[in-house]
Amino acid sequence: PELRKDPVTNRWVIFSPARAKRPSDFKSKSPENPNNNSSSCPFCIGNEHQCAPEIFRVPPDPNWKLRVIENLYPALSRKLDHPNGQNDDSSSELSGLGWVVAGFGFHDVVIETPVHSVQLSDLDPSEIGDVLIAYKRRIEQIKQFDSIKYIQVFKNHGASAGASMSHSHSQMLSLPIVPPSVSTRLNSMKEHFNQTGKCSLCQVQSKDLLINETSHFFSIAPYASSFPFEIWIIPRDHSSHFDELDNKKAVDLGGLLKLILKKMALQLNNPPFNFMIHTSPIQVTDSELPCSHWFLQIIPQLTGVGGFELGSGCYINPVFPDDAAKILRELNVPI
Amino acid sequence: PELRKDPVTNRWVIFSPARAKRPSDFKSKSPENPNNNSSSCPFCIGNEHQCAPEIFRVPPDPNWKLRVIENLYPALSRKLDHPNGQNDDSSSELSGLGWVVAGFGFHDVVIETPVHSVQLSDLDPSEIGDVLIAYKRRIEQIKQFDSIKYIQVFKNHGASAGASMSHSHSQMLSLPIVPPSVSTRLNSMKEHFNQTGKCSLCQVQSKDLLINETSHFFSIAPYASSFPFEIWIIPRDHSSHFDELDNKKAVDLGGLLKLILKKMALQLNNPPFNFMIHTSPIQVTDSELPCSHWFLQIIPQLTGVGGFELGSGCYINPVFPDDAAKILRELNVPI
Repeated sequence: PELRKDPVTNRWVIFSPARAKRPSDFKSKSPENPNNNSSSCPFCIGNEHQCAPEIFRVPPDPNWKLRVIENLYPALSRKLDHPNGQNDDSSSELSGLGWVVAGFGFHDVVIETPVHSVQLSDLDPSEIGDVLIAYKRRIEQIKQFDSIKYIQVFKNHGASAGASMSHSHSQMLSLPIVPPSVSTRLNSMKEHFNQTGKCSLCQVQSKDLLINETSHFFSIAPYASSFPFEIWIIPRDHSSHFDELDNKKAVDLGGLLKLILKKMALQLNNPPFNFMIHTSPIQVTDSELPCSHWFLQIIPQLTGVGGFELGSGCYINPVFPDDAAKILRELNVPI
Repeated sequence: PELRKDPVTNRWVIFSPARAKRPSDFKSKSPENPNNNSSSCPFCIGNEHQCAPEIFRVPPDPNWKLRVIENLYPALSRKLDHPNGQNDDSSSELSGLGWVVAGFGFHDVVIETPVHSVQLSDLDPSEIGDVLIAYKRRIEQIKQFDSIKYIQVFKNHGASAGASMSHSHSQMLSLPIVPPSVSTRLNSMKEHFNQTGKCSLCQVQSKDLLINETSHFFSIAPYASSFPFEIWIIPRDHSSHFDELDNKKAVDLGGLLKLILKKMALQLNNPPFNFMIHTSPIQVTDSELPCSHWFLQIIPQLTGVGGFELGSGCYINPVFPDDAAKILRELNVPI
């Protein structure tokens, strides 16, 4: 066994291959069984009236290809505050027991396709690019609210990965705080920059960890992966914020994301998975820009967590990332 | 909704009750079904030869009441190093991609009872006290190894909480590093101490969060609980390290732990759960002792986590701790 600490997440991971089978034997025990009963699904085309209010659709006509809507059960309330700090309830206060902030924020859903049986990886690279550009467009709208500090874009695929709807969708939760994982990541990347003069993600060049690459992006199994077959997709050129993505790069990223999701489904038996976009807080200082580099993290659900992980914040990973990268790199999938 | 930040864990939690049912309606959907087939269980009395080597048993004769053994599939290896730094492989090195440390450590199992069908909460307070004193005795042995920096004691109850064996047991993972959650907690408690001159856990006095108390301990639903019905048991007198526990306090804690586990099982439909002992690193400076206070955290498994939690490190909790505390405080259980 070996412990590794990632220079981006600042997290220790125990690699303990002796506990497990061969890396290539890892398969999901609970493959995602898409629910094809679309008659009662509010995300399907024709059922728009069953949804919470729409924010925008693409294209803007009845024959839409994607929709951004409000979450019917939002974790945060869009009604507590007004834009531009006119009634800024969201500043934090000390309650004597800890800090408290009013629950202002936006919780949006991106319906990625009008058709129930279609998954994100079934779409064309340019259609996946449209989903990514929809995230960007919504981020640009929300950035106008001074009290929003961070926007977490994420996708839950499969019930055990947290998806309550089987129709392909992703979510955007806009927060009145900078979350702890984001602060830790920024501090860690800043420390690396101060020590080496370089951005830690610009420096990732290890051939052993590479899975696939395109003109503008590359995908790796990160050096200190917390989970078996965890994958990061990283823009080749330095970029602090996801919403710097342009249309051309969105199509390029769409193609790589499609390839990686197809490979993951084939190798790991169509596992439930999550993906998260790790970007920078909306407001950053000029000195933070050169050390902060956005990326997309994909975590297939193959193992559970227990008291050790909950208590220590360390993870035990039975698959070295070099092995995971080699398996996924050498895998051929029909696209 | 409201966001709260805990002064101990330094973690933001979104309380969002609108998403869910009434607090009293929370029940486990996958209650733990203890496997009563003890014939093939290596943890049962009479099957000791099927286990990895024993470290000690209590009492030290064939009719034991608890055993501490090596884990048959340890996450860390006890063979990589020698005590007292004679061959200290565990110092961390920079690999160019991140930090790396040899996987030296101890991964032990505490078999809490000889009988398969008995759960921890079925034991008498003094018998639970014996289990706690066994943790302490093993910690005192491991403390002799200079390269061990932190010992995580934890219990997984139920398969979906990470337990691979149904026979009642807990685990101790002794690490060559101080884990990230521990560093964050210590820094956060230090900051509170520097600001107020007081230990944040000595200061917890909120009646609204109290569940039950004894001579030496009290239990609360913490102000910024990450999970619904999360419970902390805290020593009343300031104490930095769990292994300061004496026999008398162990029996007292055993009684409170039994009561809380019984209440949790009754109220929440016998949920899978984890408990973790949060103590201080083995080596601490004199200035850290007054701000560091150990406690035991219990997390019943009622909700899953998804991409938002994995990405941001924030949790969404549908139950305010004041409501959880009131329900558990007012619940009567036959003991």
